[in-house]
Amino acid sequence: MLTIEELLTNLDLALRQVIEQRQLVNPMMIGIRTGGVWIAEQMHQRLAIEEPLGLLDISFYRDDFSQLGVHPHVKPSAIPGHIDGRDIILIDDVFYTGRTVRAALNEIFDYGRPNQVVLAVLIERDGKQIPISPDCVGVRMALSAYQRIKLLGPDPLVIEVENMPLHSEGETVR
Amino acid sequence: MLTIEELLTNLDLALRQVIEQRQLVNPMMIGIRTGGVWIAEQMHQRLAIEEPLGLLDISFYRDDFSQLGVHPHVKPSAIPGHIDGRDIILIDDVFYTGRTVRAALNEIFDYGRPNQVVLAVLIERDGKQIPISPDCVGVRMALSAYQRIKLLGPDPLVIEVENMPLHSEGETVR
Repeated sequence: MLTIEELLTNLDLALRQVIEQRQLVNPMMIGIRTGGVWIAEQMHQRLAIEEPLGLLDISFYRDDFSQLGVHPHVKPSAIPGHIDGRDIILIDDVFYTGRTVRAALNEIFDYGRPNQVVLAVLIERDGKQIPISPDCVGVRMALSAYQRIKLLGPDPLVIEVENMPLHSEGETVR
Repeated sequence: MLTIEELLTNLDLALRQVIEQRQLVNPMMIGIRTGGVWIAEQMHQRLAIEEPLGLLDISFYRDDFSQLGVHPHVKPSAIPGHIDGRDIILIDDVFYTGRTVRAALNEIFDYGRPNQVVLAVLIERDGKQIPISPDCVGVRMALSAYQRIKLLGPDPLVIEVENMPLHSEGETVR
């Protein structure tokens, strides 16, 4: 298992490569609340981006919003400038089904029409359900459907892998 | 250069693999008008899918819709059943920036919340602007920004690569 520091360095290097390949001009960095913002804060500093970091809360854009209802702790999104024609670096902690990123893209496009959006995530795990893929990752991990991975933070940043209880027939889950 | 028949066979095989890996159950196939529908018709037949093919027209969902206005020849979308909880195979002819697929995903999610969406395209060219990626491709091609690739059809299906005029300074483009 790599350390958090090693994952951040991997992501940093991958981002520098993509910024060059895709010729990003004065990119705006946006983190997805909550864990994505912690990673974005690290990348924002490492890449010495001057413009303030953008923050996205996708609670209202989730495709299961009607099932979940309004979460009492939703914080507002904060985008530090116009999106139209901009190159965006979108950052999240864990990429899993792709649904969070789809929601985040919709929120970004509600602000304006970006030139490009590059997606960088600290951890990509298997379980994709939507044809969305990160452009940069810190690490790819194979986990079973019964394992959940979570980033705790912000100081220190810790990756927690949790085994979820199995709901097998006739067995009580405590 | 591969023939259309070879590209279709590649896509067919890639789709069979993904259907098994991702354990798609009774998938609904949807083609994006116009070229994607031609490819979808071929795959629908090859994979012996019984449910009718779905058709998607994304004209109203394009992110440059306000610039383009209403196209006089927009045909309606036709989805043959409920989307909620379904496994979807979405098909297009050429994958380029990712904007068309983003629009198509939004239209699909307006119908309901699918379980999974798998994206299959005949040709993936470089030029991605959105973090969307096909799960299955017939072929990947490197083209310059001045080249446009287009599928003509439906009978016969022909791939046309066009060199676009260069808008250099002081030169009149005819």
